[in-house]
Amino acid sequence: MESPNGQELISRRSNKDVSLLELRDRLAEFAAVRGWDKFHSPRNLLLALVGEVGELSEIFQWKGEVERGLPNWSSNDKEHLEEELSDVLLYLVRLADVCGLDLGQAALSKLIKNARKYPVVKP
Amino acid sequence: MESPNGQELISRRSNKDVSLLELRDRLAEFAAVRGWDKFHSPRNLLLALVGEVGELSEIFQWKGEVERGLPNWSSNDKEHLEEELSDVLLYLVRLADVCGLDLGQAALSKLIKNARKYPVVKP
Amino acid sequence: MESPNGQELISRRSNKDVSLLELRDRLAEFAAVRGWDKFHSPRNLLLALVGEVGELSEIFQWKGEVERGLPNWSSNDKEHLEEELSDVLLYLVRLADVCGLDLGQAALSKLIKNARKYPVVKP
Amino acid sequence: MESPNGQELISRRSNKDVSLLELRDRLAEFAAVRGWDKFHSPRNLLLALVGEVGELSEIFQWKGEVERGLPNWSSNDKEHLEEELSDVLLYLVRLADVCGLDLGQAALSKLIKNARKYPVVKP
Repeated sequence: MESPNGQELISRRSNKDVSLLELRDRLAEFAAVRGWDKFHSPRNLLLALVGEVGELSEIFQWKGEVERGLPNWSSNDKEHLEEELSDVLLYLVRLADVCGLDLGQAALSKLIKNARKYPVVKP
Repeated sequence: MESPNGQELISRRSNKDVSLLELRDRLAEFAAVRGWDKFHSPRNLLLALVGEVGELSEIFQWKGEVERGLPNWSSNDKEHLEEELSDVLLYLVRLADVCGLDLGQAALSKLIKNARKYPVVKP
Repeated sequence: MESPNGQELISRRSNKDVSLLELRDRLAEFAAVRGWDKFHSPRNLLLALVGEVGELSEIFQWKGEVERGLPNWSSNDKEHLEEELSDVLLYLVRLADVCGLDLGQAALSKLIKNARKYPVVKP
Repeated sequence: MESPNGQELISRRSNKDVSLLELRDRLAEFAAVRGWDKFHSPRNLLLALVGEVGELSEIFQWKGEVERGLPNWSSNDKEHLEEELSDVLLYLVRLADVCGLDLGQAALSKLIKNARKYPVVKP
């Protein structure tokens, strides 16, 4: 295996623009090679998603109000939060996929619908 | 500005590859121009996310087991589902952003961690 | 054992001591006479519960931190909250019932277990 | 008013009719003697409730449809389920209490409202 060249390292480090289709495809392969497709029915995945939302909530449950940017959180706490946010995302992407829906397109459409529903009020 | 060629139009129409950074930036602008930043604290967004997960669950609640691909769902029901999946995604992306976290990177890291945690068993 | 005096009866009546078995039985009858038993599978009820938890969360989502006793809430908002708390409770009681479990007994046992897990520290 | 005879005491013990006020009072004392009142703000408790609903969902997540009565569940699995159902109940009771609301009364009122909303259809 060759090591990545400098340019790749930089772009990887700086801010790789992860797409929903990439996640969808990786998750589909992840499940397929492990023989997990039979468990990935819509309602199983929905309940798994709810479970992860619960774990996400547990992180915030005894903290009272939390400031944007999480100024006083340890890097461990932030990593834990990143993991739980990711778990919610991964099950959401997988749920949309087994339902045969394009989550990215749907999200863009919802953004446009929301923009119409809540027009910007000029002073 | 040049118009896109035919190939681009087709691929864009058929399956535009929406990225998490694009959604993040659009949501940030959406909130900013509406003066909503003051409402977008981490716990407010988390509870809004839980609210949307509830609406997502309501779609599935009386259906018993649901087959992959949603074979017998009306297009109206599918559209409704797309909207609720999107609402969960949009609040999740926004929550990660106000926490100062890179959701796409975090999701890729979690995928790699999961791949190590659940190695593929060869027959 | 003395019978309660009038004052006690009044205060007790104004604050009727509703039991979990009473709710369980009323809900079972409610479903039976409407022919709803066929919809009340464990996972259907669980998803309905998640839906109600979502509605409960929506009440709190844009409020920032909320003080105990809800000092500045309108009576309408309090009534709405009572309804959503009740919906969560009713689905929870029903879910336990269709699973064949005694929720009240289970809750008492959990309280005892928690008391052992978190012993009171004397100064 | 006569005191209950032995038979009543036994049947009461074997299926004790736990009330919501009893749980409310026990939980209030539980928190008070541990100095936990300062953590029991409405939104902290709500997020704790969401966390427990997540744990409840995890029990059901990979099971596909589950039959009423849980015919093939081990007693360990049933106990685990009882604990998670209880955790949801206890946080719900506590949340209502710190909001100054009477959950039992509210639930009875909601039942009556539901009975009017969904009248029984006679054949």
